[in-house]
Amino acid sequence: MSNPNGAERLCDTLLANDIDVCFANPGTSEMHFVAALDRRPQMRCVLGLFEGVVTGAADGYGRMTDRPAATLLHLGPGLANGLANLHNARRARTPIVNVVGDHATYHLPYDAPLTSDVESLARPMSDWVGRADKPDTVVDVASEACRAALERSGISTLILAADAAWGAAPDGPIHRVQPAPRPSVEQHDVDEAAEAIRSGNRVVLLLGGRALRAEPLEVAGRIAAVTDAEMMAENFNQRIERGAGRTPIRKLAYPIDATIAALADVDTLILIGAQRPVGFFAYPGKPSDLVPKQCRVVELARPLDDLKGALDLLADAVDASARPPTHQSIQETSPQAIALSGVLTADTACRIVAAMVPEHAIICDESVTSGRSFYAHSEAAPPHDYLQLTGGSIGIGMPLGAGAAIACPDRRVICLQADGSGMYTVQALWTHAREGLNVTTVIFSNRAYAILQAEMKNVGVGQHGRNADRMLQIDDPALDWVSIARGMGVEAIRAETAEDLTSALSASFGQSGPFLIEVVL
Amino acid sequence: MSNPNGAERLCDTLLANDIDVCFANPGTSEMHFVAALDRRPQMRCVLGLFEGVVTGAADGYGRMTDRPAATLLHLGPGLANGLANLHNARRARTPIVNVVGDHATYHLPYDAPLTSDVESLARPMSDWVGRADKPDTVVDVASEACRAALERSGISTLILAADAAWGAAPDGPIHRVQPAPRPSVEQHDVDEAAEAIRSGNRVVLLLGGRALRAEPLEVAGRIAAVTDAEMMAENFNQRIERGAGRTPIRKLAYPIDATIAALADVDTLILIGAQRPVGFFAYPGKPSDLVPKQCRVVELARPLDDLKGALDLLADAVDASARPPTHQSIQETSPQAIALSGVLTADTACRIVAAMVPEHAIICDESVTSGRSFYAHSEAAPPHDYLQLTGGSIGIGMPLGAGAAIACPDRRVICLQADGSGMYTVQALWTHAREGLNVTTVIFSNRAYAILQAEMKNVGVGQHGRNADRMLQIDDPALDWVSIARGMGVEAIRAETAEDLTSALSASFGQSGPFLIEVVL
Repeated sequence: MSNPNGAERLCDTLLANDIDVCFANPGTSEMHFVAALDRRPQMRCVLGLFEGVVTGAADGYGRMTDRPAATLLHLGPGLANGLANLHNARRARTPIVNVVGDHATYHLPYDAPLTSDVESLARPMSDWVGRADKPDTVVDVASEACRAALERSGISTLILAADAAWGAAPDGPIHRVQPAPRPSVEQHDVDEAAEAIRSGNRVVLLLGGRALRAEPLEVAGRIAAVTDAEMMAENFNQRIERGAGRTPIRKLAYPIDATIAALADVDTLILIGAQRPVGFFAYPGKPSDLVPKQCRVVELARPLDDLKGALDLLADAVDASARPPTHQSIQETSPQAIALSGVLTADTACRIVAAMVPEHAIICDESVTSGRSFYAHSEAAPPHDYLQLTGGSIGIGMPLGAGAAIACPDRRVICLQADGSGMYTVQALWTHAREGLNVTTVIFSNRAYAILQAEMKNVGVGQHGRNADRMLQIDDPALDWVSIARGMGVEAIRAETAEDLTSALSASFGQSGPFLIEVVL
Repeated sequence: MSNPNGAERLCDTLLANDIDVCFANPGTSEMHFVAALDRRPQMRCVLGLFEGVVTGAADGYGRMTDRPAATLLHLGPGLANGLANLHNARRARTPIVNVVGDHATYHLPYDAPLTSDVESLARPMSDWVGRADKPDTVVDVASEACRAALERSGISTLILAADAAWGAAPDGPIHRVQPAPRPSVEQHDVDEAAEAIRSGNRVVLLLGGRALRAEPLEVAGRIAAVTDAEMMAENFNQRIERGAGRTPIRKLAYPIDATIAALADVDTLILIGAQRPVGFFAYPGKPSDLVPKQCRVVELARPLDDLKGALDLLADAVDASARPPTHQSIQETSPQAIALSGVLTADTACRIVAAMVPEHAIICDESVTSGRSFYAHSEAAPPHDYLQLTGGSIGIGMPLGAGAAIACPDRRVICLQADGSGMYTVQALWTHAREGLNVTTVIFSNRAYAILQAEMKNVGVGQHGRNADRMLQIDDPALDWVSIARGMGVEAIRAETAEDLTSALSASFGQSGPFLIEVVL
């Protein structure tokens, strides 16, 4: 048995850290990693036909497992294609070990056509960047990448030089990384938060990140039940465990005026894994910081702290720990019960999907404007997970669905997908088909960048004319999503009425594999 | 009449420099630029449904006009999506004014979800990066961006803060930039090159960039005709003017062994707008520098020099100026004449397309492995332009075709498109349809990353098994390109035989607008 090469050692390091799924779009410089897959069958490698699919899928996988997937990207341009969804993953604090192949170290000075500054591209969307340029450093650098991804719950970009991949590396045991535990919060912050809650002033617990899982939500619900404190989620969240039997929580809204109104009379905002609320964009004459002047902000727990522990301490401090949990009851919300029929609107489509959410479904919501009412309508649906676009970089929905489905093969994934956003990473449909994933994609086909039509007004543009309108409308020609999906091997159907949508969802949920429904609005 | 805003001043600066086409995928931070289009109808704005389409189209436009188009991209992630084709454009030395909107300057410190380090992302794929963060600096910064794009024949990335776009800017005349002329070459380099040519040793004139246009090629052809010097083009070129009535030129090949063989016995390599040949990738045991040891390299003219002037001086020095030009004669190469019928191979498909190239067609070649024989087969086709993937970042073909068709609306554009590469920017088909572009896309559907199957061997991987093979095959499921194209509004047909392909090409060339032919291999 000869020595392993660097690519095999990288594979072994990932496997030693329980990273056994790799989303990939490889090129020549990654061929040794690809070849290593044959000798490391424990590593599941999933091909995407575009790198934005790869990184978005890694995000979906990481959100559902709380463990990193690996990616495999080809040089600077391949990384560049994956950056938009890495941006979203970074904002979601999803751990990913993002492997980018580069030219052999000695080849870089020749400035071959595909050469670029990979580090400069990687840094803005990475929490950690490192390079393995010799076979015998691969294990150490890869271990550091794993540690950083786990401890920072973020993006580790590991650049692997081709000669480090193909060169012989020393063999030997690889130690699993032991990440530091999540820090506990300070008692004086707990005391300050508890005091604010007891004061009788208006207090909001603003929850973000992993505070939106069922267990911490239940604790927050106990606190809200015995005090006057309200609980709210950030606008865009990595994953909310919700539905019947869980503790419900409202979200802040995207439109800036709605957020300002929601926070207007708050005296104390207690941040638990959430950021201080800011405008998604700057709008002329409106603030960037959305916390009102009189409001005190207490950062009880930062996103990487032990959020459940923080809430437990706060519950103790306000005598809420013994209180029975507040659980959402299930509602009878079958499409028949809500008696919808006829032509679909975005809202009725949301009602119907909400009424039919299967138990333990995973909702990947990139519906942008069309799906805004879904969250409210689905509050009493069977228990499900709700994943959102976190970084504002559109084109995440269907890739996220792919990764979630690979993480949770026994659950139904529903992508609520705006049409404009869906086009950015439309290649994800092929991965749904290739892997036979249980993903139902619901396209809200309004044939417009509808959000921009509203944003034109928000940024102070009054009337606009034909030239501008041509940048906001995508109706000429109209996209035929059924044709596009079938072209990538995904069964698809068009829904023009409530009855169509109901029957299409039933068909999809009654069978395995991917399905696309174009909801014509 | 109130003062214009910064966005309007940017538009005016571009127009003052004859930049009147903008390829765009805007978002909220670019809404004032979009609104400005209504008041500046001279600016033609072309929407792409993905940023890689936008930048690839700007490349195609710039290659055909030698003038920059503008782009309009949304923040860091929008730029990131456009980087792969900016990389190709930069390697092609195509001038582009790449406009990237950013948050309002005062909003950046709040780290809103879409915030990122735009400069860090832009630098690796830009020749110039600048930021306009106040309305009254927009004209100056934009003028510098135009100057840099023109003088460096490169990518100027202009970051436009939203508050610079919406704020009132001082009015006044805008001066057109006067770029410095292209430098002349040094006489001693001419003398050295001439001496090498006269020596009787084996000399190759290696031409790149704008040296491959008809006029400089004709001069190079005169030199080759009166001396023993050979002429060759680089492997990947921005644009070659070729076909009947032009001076033919061979190209270096992609496979490294073929390039090494082609240069093996060369005594002097004279670079005229070309780079010293290097391996596209590093391969174990093979050199990076492909110039053989005994070979002297004379850099007669760098890519940004006056290449036609350099060749004129060299022709004078070797008494070739008076010689009549060497012109390719036209050949009778109708499909009937070459008598092809039955099942298609990649080579027969190339022969048929070559035999049917319409006069003044523009070929955008991203056929990767399948189309390698097209260049030889089309040598005697009617005069046409031949554009290639320059930077190795796949996903350029159909966007390039869009830009070329907008630059040259009266000419037929033919995209020779590999299937794997085509999927990266498949959204380009929608732009073909929306703008009614005369683009015929020929998909070589081999359902594989065929180039990687060969590269596996080149990098020293012997046998590979099922896991690796799953990363190289895209046949499960097979893509149905006809369905995908129709879904984006492009007429499409499948060709399984030579007769099918001939009749489909005839149909497309006989009508206006886009058309896609899936050649099933």
